Amino acid sequence: MEQILKGVKILDFTQYKAGPMGTQILGDMGADIVKIERCGGGDLERSFSAFGMVTEGGDSPFFLAMNRNKKSLALNLKTPEAKEVIYKLADEADVVVQNFRPGVLKKLGYGYEDFKKINPSVIYCSNSGYGLDGPYVQRPGQDLLAQSMSGLVLMNGTEENPVAVATSVADAATALYLCIAILGALYHKKNTGEGQEVDVDLLSSTIAIQQEEISAYLNLKPRPEFKRSKTGLAAPWNGAPYGIYRTSDDKFIALGVIPMEKLAKLIDEPDLAEYKTLEESFAARDEIRQVVEKHIRENTQKYWVDYMLSFDVWCAPVNTYEEMLNDPQVVHNQNIREIEHPELGSIGIITTPIRYAKTPLKYDMAPPLVGEHSEEILKSLGYSKEEAAAVISRQEK
Amino acid sequence: MEQILKGVKILDFTQYKAGPMGTQILGDMGADIVKIERCGGGDLERSFSAFGMVTEGGDSPFFLAMNRNKKSLALNLKTPEAKEVIYKLADEADVVVQNFRPGVLKKLGYGYEDFKKINPSVIYCSNSGYGLDGPYVQRPGQDLLAQSMSGLVLMNGTEENPVAVATSVADAATALYLCIAILGALYHKKNTGEGQEVDVDLLSSTIAIQQEEISAYLNLKPRPEFKRSKTGLAAPWNGAPYGIYRTSDDKFIALGVIPMEKLAKLIDEPDLAEYKTLEESFAARDEIRQVVEKHIRENTQKYWVDYMLSFDVWCAPVNTYEEMLNDPQVVHNQNIREIEHPELGSIGIITTPIRYAKTPLKYDMAPPLVGEHSEEILKSLGYSKEEAAAVISRQEK
Repeated sequence: MEQILKGVKILDFTQYKAGPMGTQILGDMGADIVKIERCGGGDLERSFSAFGMVTEGGDSPFFLAMNRNKKSLALNLKTPEAKEVIYKLADEADVVVQNFRPGVLKKLGYGYEDFKKINPSVIYCSNSGYGLDGPYVQRPGQDLLAQSMSGLVLMNGTEENPVAVATSVADAATALYLCIAILGALYHKKNTGEGQEVDVDLLSSTIAIQQEEISAYLNLKPRPEFKRSKTGLAAPWNGAPYGIYRTSDDKFIALGVIPMEKLAKLIDEPDLAEYKTLEESFAARDEIRQVVEKHIRENTQKYWVDYMLSFDVWCAPVNTYEEMLNDPQVVHNQNIREIEHPELGSIGIITTPIRYAKTPLKYDMAPPLVGEHSEEILKSLGYSKEEAAAVISRQEK
Repeated sequence: MEQILKGVKILDFTQYKAGPMGTQILGDMGADIVKIERCGGGDLERSFSAFGMVTEGGDSPFFLAMNRNKKSLALNLKTPEAKEVIYKLADEADVVVQNFRPGVLKKLGYGYEDFKKINPSVIYCSNSGYGLDGPYVQRPGQDLLAQSMSGLVLMNGTEENPVAVATSVADAATALYLCIAILGALYHKKNTGEGQEVDVDLLSSTIAIQQEEISAYLNLKPRPEFKRSKTGLAAPWNGAPYGIYRTSDDKFIALGVIPMEKLAKLIDEPDLAEYKTLEESFAARDEIRQVVEKHIRENTQKYWVDYMLSFDVWCAPVNTYEEMLNDPQVVHNQNIREIEHPELGSIGIITTPIRYAKTPLKYDMAPPLVGEHSEEILKSLGYSKEEAAAVISRQEK
């Protein structure tokens, strides 16, 4: 059972989330990833705090989530010696991937044209905030900003208090599009021998995942008002009951699309069956929600989930992370695994949610320390142990 | 400039969002996709209403968003005649992809083993709610339910009112993982000639995009309380000012991570510089937010965005869809294009956010009508015009 990307070599200059989350999937598929990091602090994500904290080892838990299956080579990109090392690595690389602001790496001698001279069939993948050209090319690009500019934040909050999505979905979407972009380019290279440049960006990716809502905005006539319901359904376009409801034990359940006639019977409210068309029930969505709310508060989460599922209704418990981690299906699917970290002992990792029958993903290399593999990588390029040590010590100055 | 997946044949049984959004990317890359639909209504997404509405042509705007570059073949899967047609198509297919509930297609004679007999190197990709086995295999799987079970909903709302993310991120994430799964399998097939089964699911994908937060839950010691701030920052783990702020013109801006010392100078509040550590400023996040809020309300959105960007601070306007669509960078990036639909005239589509220098994505085939290509596809399998017409009329009965 050989892995899909065994032998594929990736030179990874990415930091933060979108780049590393995307390339990690390629590592899980067996690609050989060299992560180029700054000497000293390394990837800026290592110091990104959550709840004002990092882990005991000094790295952010966010960094640990996205950097398994990568080897770390610490270099000072501005030195000629680093350039020599990177150009040697580029000679054999299938893919170079980077998410510096547009133009930054090129100025340092690590642009597509530089690598192409060494390795004509190299794939050079860039990830930026807004694209490699255009009016915002010099603006800072980041998850919260992409969410806000894409229209997602105004959809997600209440009208009074718009709020960003509570996980970095702009980064996550871009990570996945970046992975798709690289796999597509690798397929083309396997087919034709040809490399190329490809790029993705946060703003475009965040727009793309809203393709349903944006298509409604572009193609519904007359264009409806894109306003959230007063009583808080899941999205501006949702009719009732679609949304989250509190139960008698102060937990919550989710209820999806249910035809009015069926809903009327399920909660014994015959009046609800009077809404005969989607337009009528959409117009009355706040009233309908209040009727449903009253009923759901009368019994427990477990009661309602069991009851609704017995009628094959779209219903689920609203879980805390603790409940999710102990959910029998999550345990069954092995969404969480443990891996030995060189400093922290056993850490929890979140697996890539793809199951191949013949080429299973692997989870065998912990997120690296900064420069953990510098010596090994330099030696693989022909440096002696002493030469490698000398390069490392000069780079760290 | 040949397209990446030119010549790759995909037999697509998927409906709703996660499947069609994933396979559409493969179509944009040039794959030849035959979408198998129910006679009559077709993909259930066609009748999925937004704001209680569908388009004038009768199809949901959601369907239009996710089904370009596909040919529609309408069949009644339960008939022997449909099976004959599908098996003929399977003979040349590289990929079969489906998102029926686990076991349903297999029972009808369209499982992996059935197709493998005809075509040993076929890739068979399944998308389900929770995986192909395990305790929830027979539960309905759907975006809202996956968001709720994964822990995302409790992160996203306020403590009092948890709310689902206002776009179907569980579906979108699964679509992208599905696309990655297929591209990986195609690469392996190109390399080795070998096909295989692969599957993805909504719940696992929604967990995976929260890998930062879940890693914090698993790996921070002591484990912090995963509670939202009282004043509404973007996520439970965010310190101030990270979040959305109202401006004097009743618009909003987003402010990302800003070191306290810099923030103190930017809004002329020297006291803020007294928070020296991340722990301190995290603990005081609600107080800090209120100080920032007061200042931001004193000036317009444009003022603040210009001011903050002049210091290279993570700042952006919070756009409506109208503002986003007219944003000069969105126009520059061509995130939205127009395409001619057989019934609706010109419709707006949202492009796939990947730019290849040598193998550009294409957007030339509108989302099909149900069975629009049935005759063409049957004829390509060797049926005469008359035979094709007879099959179509028998299938529609």
